[in-house]
Amino acid sequence: LSRPLSKASAVAFDLPALPPLDGEARQAWVYRLLREAILRGTLMSGMRVPSSRALAARLAVSRSTIEVAFDQLRAEGYVAGVVGSGTFVSAALPDGFLLKPSPSGPAASISTMVPSEADRAVRVDTPFVARVADATLFPFAEWRSHLQAAARTEAAATAGGADALFGDRSLRAHVARYLGAARGIACDASQVLITAGIRQGLNLAGRALLQPTDKVLLEDPGYALAADIFAPYTRRLVSVAIDEAGFSVADARRHAGVRAAHVTPAHQSPTGVTMPVARRLELLNWARERGAWVLEDDYDSEFNYRSAPLPALKSLDEGDRVVHFGSFNKTMFADLRIGYVVVPRDLAAAFAKGCRALGPAVGIIEQRALATFIADGGLARHVRRARAAYARRRERVLQGLREIMAPRALRVTGEHAGFHFVWWLPEDVAADSLAAQARLRGLRLEFVADHSRRLDATAGVLIGDSALDDTQLDDALGRLKSTFEAARARQ
Amino acid sequence: LSRPLSKASAVAFDLPALPPLDGEARQAWVYRLLREAILRGTLMSGMRVPSSRALAARLAVSRSTIEVAFDQLRAEGYVAGVVGSGTFVSAALPDGFLLKPSPSGPAASISTMVPSEADRAVRVDTPFVARVADATLFPFAEWRSHLQAAARTEAAATAGGADALFGDRSLRAHVARYLGAARGIACDASQVLITAGIRQGLNLAGRALLQPTDKVLLEDPGYALAADIFAPYTRRLVSVAIDEAGFSVADARRHAGVRAAHVTPAHQSPTGVTMPVARRLELLNWARERGAWVLEDDYDSEFNYRSAPLPALKSLDEGDRVVHFGSFNKTMFADLRIGYVVVPRDLAAAFAKGCRALGPAVGIIEQRALATFIADGGLARHVRRARAAYARRRERVLQGLREIMAPRALRVTGEHAGFHFVWWLPEDVAADSLAAQARLRGLRLEFVADHSRRLDATAGVLIGDSALDDTQLDDALGRLKSTFEAARARQ
Repeated sequence: LSRPLSKASAVAFDLPALPPLDGEARQAWVYRLLREAILRGTLMSGMRVPSSRALAARLAVSRSTIEVAFDQLRAEGYVAGVVGSGTFVSAALPDGFLLKPSPSGPAASISTMVPSEADRAVRVDTPFVARVADATLFPFAEWRSHLQAAARTEAAATAGGADALFGDRSLRAHVARYLGAARGIACDASQVLITAGIRQGLNLAGRALLQPTDKVLLEDPGYALAADIFAPYTRRLVSVAIDEAGFSVADARRHAGVRAAHVTPAHQSPTGVTMPVARRLELLNWARERGAWVLEDDYDSEFNYRSAPLPALKSLDEGDRVVHFGSFNKTMFADLRIGYVVVPRDLAAAFAKGCRALGPAVGIIEQRALATFIADGGLARHVRRARAAYARRRERVLQGLREIMAPRALRVTGEHAGFHFVWWLPEDVAADSLAAQARLRGLRLEFVADHSRRLDATAGVLIGDSALDDTQLDDALGRLKSTFEAARARQ
Repeated sequence: LSRPLSKASAVAFDLPALPPLDGEARQAWVYRLLREAILRGTLMSGMRVPSSRALAARLAVSRSTIEVAFDQLRAEGYVAGVVGSGTFVSAALPDGFLLKPSPSGPAASISTMVPSEADRAVRVDTPFVARVADATLFPFAEWRSHLQAAARTEAAATAGGADALFGDRSLRAHVARYLGAARGIACDASQVLITAGIRQGLNLAGRALLQPTDKVLLEDPGYALAADIFAPYTRRLVSVAIDEAGFSVADARRHAGVRAAHVTPAHQSPTGVTMPVARRLELLNWARERGAWVLEDDYDSEFNYRSAPLPALKSLDEGDRVVHFGSFNKTMFADLRIGYVVVPRDLAAAFAKGCRALGPAVGIIEQRALATFIADGGLARHVRRARAAYARRRERVLQGLREIMAPRALRVTGEHAGFHFVWWLPEDVAADSLAAQARLRGLRLEFVADHSRRLDATAGVLIGDSALDDTQLDDALGRLKSTFEAARARQ
């Protein structure tokens, strides 16, 4: 794994001298090299990328390793192009963001993971609104042994000072390391704050950042609770449109005096759109120009079924304008109640003040259990297993939809990741009618419109499949088929 | 314990027909009977109470049992008077609060307990600012077994809906029962909300109750974090004076348009004053008249060293105007992070909305562990042991102070309860000088003035002694003695 770059290569461009990290997977290393080359301008916008064969020879890895890395770069929007006609560096990369040195720490590794959070009023066994982790997949026996070790007298008695307020030191260090590996975020324990979940983190941000007249931009359609969360801290909440690349920076630019924007770049809530890198850089550029803070709600990023999870927006954040929010409540199980915030250095004092006013969030014993669970690899093992289970479920549901309507007419977004995706209805089926027919069949459906303040939202159905077993999925799909046919017949 | 009232009694007044409860201590039963008689007007204001001998004969209990009950009634301000000249029902009981039926559920029992919360930035081993529980007294081995039982797969996987949002059903039921026994509060599980601590509860109240122009009254001197906690929810925070009976309702009456008042009736923070029953009834009367909400911060009530803890203000709350906040973080150990709110019925929907926006607070496993720990009597056993340890420490410190200055010149408040008390400095010692001398000797002292926005606060020192062992106490007392002598010599 640690062999140097081959000098015999015939490819006519330089690659950065970035050796593989300890334990870094080969494809993660290749991905990181190429991404760095693109961001540094070594591989320039519009330039044709060398063939996978040439790169494989140059880097002394297999062609399949190169292809996995390209799949990921393509998913993130760094490169574009189809098999046969070549792969090009994306033309939409803003030049202002080409990197000077190395920005982002270690890149994403396929065997690692990140968190999420959703409306907990949803029952796990209700199709298709089950947008939560399947707790039956979680290794509770293993977790119990970590809890027990953490509950020793000496350990539990000694937290205090900053540890009591911001979180256990060892957990914060493990979260920082994990965010480096899984999300490409270069941070240390001092920047990590332990919370009960993303909602608590967003409340801390409200306290830390907002005065009553500060403008906050919210995605629309977006996270349904966002407006309630920020309501005590400011009166000025403004909707920003979602397009095929997620949060519209062009729309955001129309507003002056913006203090913060709440965004879900990994798997937009609820559309599931992944924000491509060009849009990410545009967003960061806007934040730097305006002095605004970007609240990255990384609620659903680690369960990616096509390639490694995309690195976080925070990993590109050279201006330190991004506050990154995540949670283990979906990675592990919903009722765990442990999350985190990565706090920009300029905001450390303001967040600390917020922490004192909200009070310490999480019991020391569970924090220490989580630290050793991560250290022992228990979390990584669990996420791998859960990801495989969710991927199988996702494929089963997509196959079911292909049996409900013609595959070429089927439009979905966000299907490659997370606990749900969106099924956009064909024009000859109205959402009202589908909802009415679903109710008749005991099928609860949630619509994109439920997450929007706009009246003209396109009709899309949230298909939450993560917490349903095969029997529940087949039952729900059967009911969905008859629902769909009845709704279409009534148009 | 369950013998009926004696018919042979010669005492010329009726006692309510309240038989002892299962497992209720004799003195708790007597206390409850007499308190009820006073509140119902059977024993009227200014009336001389029958002798302990007559009551002992009437109730078929020992005279010492009667005397313990009277000690408690006296501590709460229900009766007044000294040995020899007779005991009278307090003249200051407002008639409007005499009870119609029975209001308050079972009364306090000496063997039960309640919670608290404080600034966590304080290190446990720093004399005399150690106003926290001594975690070394906590039975972690026992706690571990409850955690382990609670971490079984099936149990952990199944919380959902309201349980996920408001707290585990079984824990809420146990907290309700415990509050009935320990704090005299008649409530059921549906009124109990599980939080991470009192601060989170107060934030929920801010969300549930306040608009930006609503007035909130805060005690002064008072809980140092209160202003920060409420700041996002309203701009109008108003200080109310503390007198020898605690929160001054007369001062509160000078303010119009008050939406809520934050009070610490059990052991005023920081003076330690216990609000007597006359003031309590005056406060409740004011709240009813004005339509204001009383936020009862019951942070320090279960560790009472003289008699049973006083029943909560909430136990007298016939108008359902009191929101009651408590926490297990001091009863058990500071880093546990479990507290609760008892929510008036009219506020249930508003608090539920706040819970959704702040997110569920506490992991399901620790909630279930706490439910069984309470059910098995583990909590009651621990509090009994801890109370005895704290009482010994308190006596040691008071004895130390009596060696520092003449006992008849020694003025303290709040010394009968909690994790700290206040030592009011004699006029010939200035706080500045004492603080400077303390610093020279490595002794950290906290002053009442640190908890006040007023400049004219009388000089008092908070003596936090709960988390210090005998060696630490003796060392700290030694340094305090030389500090005091040096400060006095410099006047």
